[in-house]
Amino acid sequence: MSTTTNIGIIGAAGYTGGELLRILLRHPRVHIAFAHSRSSAGQPVYSIHEDLLGETSLHFSDTIDTGVDVIFLCTGHGESKKILADLNIPAHTRIIDLSQDFRLQAQAAFNGKNFVYGLPEFQKAAIQQAQYIANPGCFATAIQLALLPLAGQIALQNVHLTGITGATGAGQKLQSTSHFPWRSNNISAYKSLAHQHIAEITETLTSGGAKAEGELHFIPWRGDFARGIFVTAVVNTSLTLAEAMALYQSFYAEHPFTHVSEGTISMKQVANTNKCLLQLEQEGNHLVIHAAIDNLLKGASGQAVQNLNLMMGWPEDLGLQLKPLAF
Amino acid sequence: MSTTTNIGIIGAAGYTGGELLRILLRHPRVHIAFAHSRSSAGQPVYSIHEDLLGETSLHFSDTIDTGVDVIFLCTGHGESKKILADLNIPAHTRIIDLSQDFRLQAQAAFNGKNFVYGLPEFQKAAIQQAQYIANPGCFATAIQLALLPLAGQIALQNVHLTGITGATGAGQKLQSTSHFPWRSNNISAYKSLAHQHIAEITETLTSGGAKAEGELHFIPWRGDFARGIFVTAVVNTSLTLAEAMALYQSFYAEHPFTHVSEGTISMKQVANTNKCLLQLEQEGNHLVIHAAIDNLLKGASGQAVQNLNLMMGWPEDLGLQLKPLAF
Amino acid sequence: MSTTTNIGIIGAAGYTGGELLRILLRHPRVHIAFAHSRSSAGQPVYSIHEDLLGETSLHFSDTIDTGVDVIFLCTGHGESKKILADLNIPAHTRIIDLSQDFRLQAQAAFNGKNFVYGLPEFQKAAIQQAQYIANPGCFATAIQLALLPLAGQIALQNVHLTGITGATGAGQKLQSTSHFPWRSNNISAYKSLAHQHIAEITETLTSGGAKAEGELHFIPWRGDFARGIFVTAVVNTSLTLAEAMALYQSFYAEHPFTHVSEGTISMKQVANTNKCLLQLEQEGNHLVIHAAIDNLLKGASGQAVQNLNLMMGWPEDLGLQLKPLAF
Amino acid sequence: MSTTTNIGIIGAAGYTGGELLRILLRHPRVHIAFAHSRSSAGQPVYSIHEDLLGETSLHFSDTIDTGVDVIFLCTGHGESKKILADLNIPAHTRIIDLSQDFRLQAQAAFNGKNFVYGLPEFQKAAIQQAQYIANPGCFATAIQLALLPLAGQIALQNVHLTGITGATGAGQKLQSTSHFPWRSNNISAYKSLAHQHIAEITETLTSGGAKAEGELHFIPWRGDFARGIFVTAVVNTSLTLAEAMALYQSFYAEHPFTHVSEGTISMKQVANTNKCLLQLEQEGNHLVIHAAIDNLLKGASGQAVQNLNLMMGWPEDLGLQLKPLAF
Repeated sequence: MSTTTNIGIIGAAGYTGGELLRILLRHPRVHIAFAHSRSSAGQPVYSIHEDLLGETSLHFSDTIDTGVDVIFLCTGHGESKKILADLNIPAHTRIIDLSQDFRLQAQAAFNGKNFVYGLPEFQKAAIQQAQYIANPGCFATAIQLALLPLAGQIALQNVHLTGITGATGAGQKLQSTSHFPWRSNNISAYKSLAHQHIAEITETLTSGGAKAEGELHFIPWRGDFARGIFVTAVVNTSLTLAEAMALYQSFYAEHPFTHVSEGTISMKQVANTNKCLLQLEQEGNHLVIHAAIDNLLKGASGQAVQNLNLMMGWPEDLGLQLKPLAF
Repeated sequence: MSTTTNIGIIGAAGYTGGELLRILLRHPRVHIAFAHSRSSAGQPVYSIHEDLLGETSLHFSDTIDTGVDVIFLCTGHGESKKILADLNIPAHTRIIDLSQDFRLQAQAAFNGKNFVYGLPEFQKAAIQQAQYIANPGCFATAIQLALLPLAGQIALQNVHLTGITGATGAGQKLQSTSHFPWRSNNISAYKSLAHQHIAEITETLTSGGAKAEGELHFIPWRGDFARGIFVTAVVNTSLTLAEAMALYQSFYAEHPFTHVSEGTISMKQVANTNKCLLQLEQEGNHLVIHAAIDNLLKGASGQAVQNLNLMMGWPEDLGLQLKPLAF
Repeated sequence: MSTTTNIGIIGAAGYTGGELLRILLRHPRVHIAFAHSRSSAGQPVYSIHEDLLGETSLHFSDTIDTGVDVIFLCTGHGESKKILADLNIPAHTRIIDLSQDFRLQAQAAFNGKNFVYGLPEFQKAAIQQAQYIANPGCFATAIQLALLPLAGQIALQNVHLTGITGATGAGQKLQSTSHFPWRSNNISAYKSLAHQHIAEITETLTSGGAKAEGELHFIPWRGDFARGIFVTAVVNTSLTLAEAMALYQSFYAEHPFTHVSEGTISMKQVANTNKCLLQLEQEGNHLVIHAAIDNLLKGASGQAVQNLNLMMGWPEDLGLQLKPLAF
Repeated sequence: MSTTTNIGIIGAAGYTGGELLRILLRHPRVHIAFAHSRSSAGQPVYSIHEDLLGETSLHFSDTIDTGVDVIFLCTGHGESKKILADLNIPAHTRIIDLSQDFRLQAQAAFNGKNFVYGLPEFQKAAIQQAQYIANPGCFATAIQLALLPLAGQIALQNVHLTGITGATGAGQKLQSTSHFPWRSNNISAYKSLAHQHIAEITETLTSGGAKAEGELHFIPWRGDFARGIFVTAVVNTSLTLAEAMALYQSFYAEHPFTHVSEGTISMKQVANTNKCLLQLEQEGNHLVIHAAIDNLLKGASGQAVQNLNLMMGWPEDLGLQLKPLAF
């Protein structure tokens, strides 16, 4: 007989909190014990996540029950540490943190807890054994999945990447670069060669064998769409296209959400799914890898549930067989 | 023990066919026996429905097995009749037709088959008994759900409606009004006061008691988005807002997909769901009703599966608890 | 010899102020004496209106020179009255106000100044003689141009209108209904049957002969685009389509910016122009009129310059022969 | 006294032809003698370029008067050669070709005509003397303007570029990658490291001193907007940011359309203008250069008129002081 796992969400009124609710309300093994939000406590969750009207009578709460089976932290960067420092978390309670507070190895141990970097395609076994998960960043997920199979063959300083992200990546807070009249039909760059995700990408790839005599070059762009990430990487390689395809297909053979396409990919193929699609091309001694994910799913809350499934010993795709948007 | 129901899709390479595949591939009681497409026969379904890459190895077929339990006709208007005339359908095979060929009462009987108009909020019992379903039009669904509770109190000639639809409503065929440079950031009207769905709306509402000494006035607009329908109706009424709210809430109390919102609704609340959201406002002796649906789901393939569930005696929302897009 | 007219803009850092700057910087008869903004004083205008980078060295000022030839008030509703009450405006200084403070006849006289409603297609002669102009609202402009030729033949209570507006219509202030993740691909209604422009429309149409035993019915929608307004009106009429076309073409024959199209119109045809396009259709005893304008131009700053030209005795389209966007 | 220059447009019904008409109809020194289109001959130009309704009575013609002062060729790649081979062009007739047929030095001489590559920021003097102009490609314009000041200091094989382009760049022809349901909210890559513009960029930069022991790396993306190009280049350099800024500002000091921004740029800043905006950033020993243009203006028809002005000895920006779109 299947028992129900009680979970709680801290920061449930934000974008990743809402996306987590959308998934977990339909997850067959999970009961949402609380959806914590200081700012919205007492209101129905559909007052903020308007699409949930008619689907749940759940309300935001202002109390946190640390005795649940799993706590998701959908809190801002820097906030997760503060919250964990304040809470008295029982030893049995699992934690999945969506901030960047515990992603780097130097920050993975906190208050006697050891956080495991939750990229299943990188270290599924470690996640299955983990009690505490640091969920990867959105750009970091796309870029690592684009490069992981090559990690042992590349030097980071020879890798060039450009990525574009949807406006949901900038969060719910009103700001001028998310104001519709400015953002629609517009493209702009930010944090050129200095995005905060470079650190976690570098740790993963070097632990996979990549040389790092310099940094990889990553240019992030703001896109004029709400949801999605598209990344293109250019690397030097002596592999033929056929060899590279074989390498990637073999690497991801056992991973249910990451697929190597033989045809051209486009970002919307993965909208509203937990998938990552990859496309390889070769020109001279360069390999070009394109990657597409949904920033709120494989780039955040979907991957968090994938990690939940792995930690709990459930099928990896439980509750994540989402109908794609397609259009 | 649950047995599997075999279904086939004719016209599986089009937009409504693709949306049906996205739902039925995850439906717990259904096996897709064939996905018929003359133009794409032999190709994997993900070659056309690119988002299905990694989710199914199904290929389009050029043969039709009429012995399946249920056939979905995702064919163009006028095509369904031709196909049924050509096929020898066994008596036990159910049919759900998404074209407009059998929606009107005068056209509901064909080749010894009697098609039932498949709007569950209008006649759930009849659908549960039906062998053949004529699935409603997209605009027709939104408009009928906006007006059904009032049917006994209105005269159609006093109803004024404007609706806007996404570009997927115009189908997969390349055409100038679906060319991106023209359609983006653009609004235009078509078929003013002459949309083909007026006929099916009129039949439903008059059978619900509406007077029809003239036609309802419906202005359809083309929207600059891919997915969704938003409709606003203005009607004369002597009801107070509280009375109207009570009427609507009572009318839809037993219908799992149609909800009356107490707050302002917006079209994206229902994106990628089978829901219809309604909002009521009153000003003087006028009631204003706003309705939002996803044109490909509640407006087409989602409602078709809802009808399937009802015909088969399954829970009405089986396989239709879809994660909303939200953004 | 052509002399230069000195103009000043109060509220120059907002959307209508920016659009006015874009036009007047290229206007052959105008010198911009000051662009007033309290919040941005001292900064170059391109720091706010980023598209003006490379086109002008003008800075926002915090002082107002009331001795210029013409002052434009690009201030919020209610603000214009306060500003005029505080300023000592010399008798020779003309004023063009873009707020709604002086549009209605009951509010047109203020501090000894009589404001003329600045819709050139309605009362060009009065504008040519005016010293003070109340510039019409954006929706009001589109709706009046759609209905003016029929004014003598309609009763307002029989007119039904739906309009959709771009996000620039909601201004520069950050707000949740202008947040990109919410607004993109979304449609919603607001102020149903209660939009503030109904009053100015009613005054114009009744002075043109329309009966008003009730109010016209206007449903405004928020659109998922930045710039533009599209309106559809349905009215009862005994005119044939040919008669209506003749009436409209004759009515607008001498007006350089308003045109009756023989083909289908779309909103983007007028983007970045001061034009209004109209399309007529007939069905039974109903006439359908579609109207498209750019909300920031013919709906605001473009019409303000048109009024300037008329007041000054210049060609009506001086500085307004703008290259359309088209795409 | 200013005389009028007669110009003709061949291929006037396409996107670049339309954009040329939008500019030249308002150009103070130009008379449009003919707008040639085989497919649309006899129709008013506004039947295709719908935004020109109300602005001109010009019709497409099926005859070409080779005796005009200037002919613009807005024809497809490969077509220009065929047309010139067929026509008997008098010696005095100037030609501006927007195709790629004559851009490379090896192809610049044709039928006794020598085409000059029309990038004013690269060789204004040569353009002023030219009789025949090969107008640069859209991506090529943005990339060259991003790199020209550095040409003497870079090796092309160390340059990495990603660019994104609007759907108008793919032209008026209906195709699946310009179908609205597919393109909206979507990003995809094409011609990775193999775009046809690399050749013309390479010629310009090497003639400016760039080393070329390998090719520059350029990844083009399809954007989900109609108009615009945004490009980011990453190059190795020992220059400080201040030195680079000084170099770029000095290089473009005499060029009216290309500006170096001290703040962050975004693509929409240049929409509907002939400008190119550049932004520089530095990180370690890398310089990052962002460039934004309107693909139909500085990337095509606007630059063609800039070349016309230079050839004719007119002010470089005559008829090109376009009101920006801004939103």
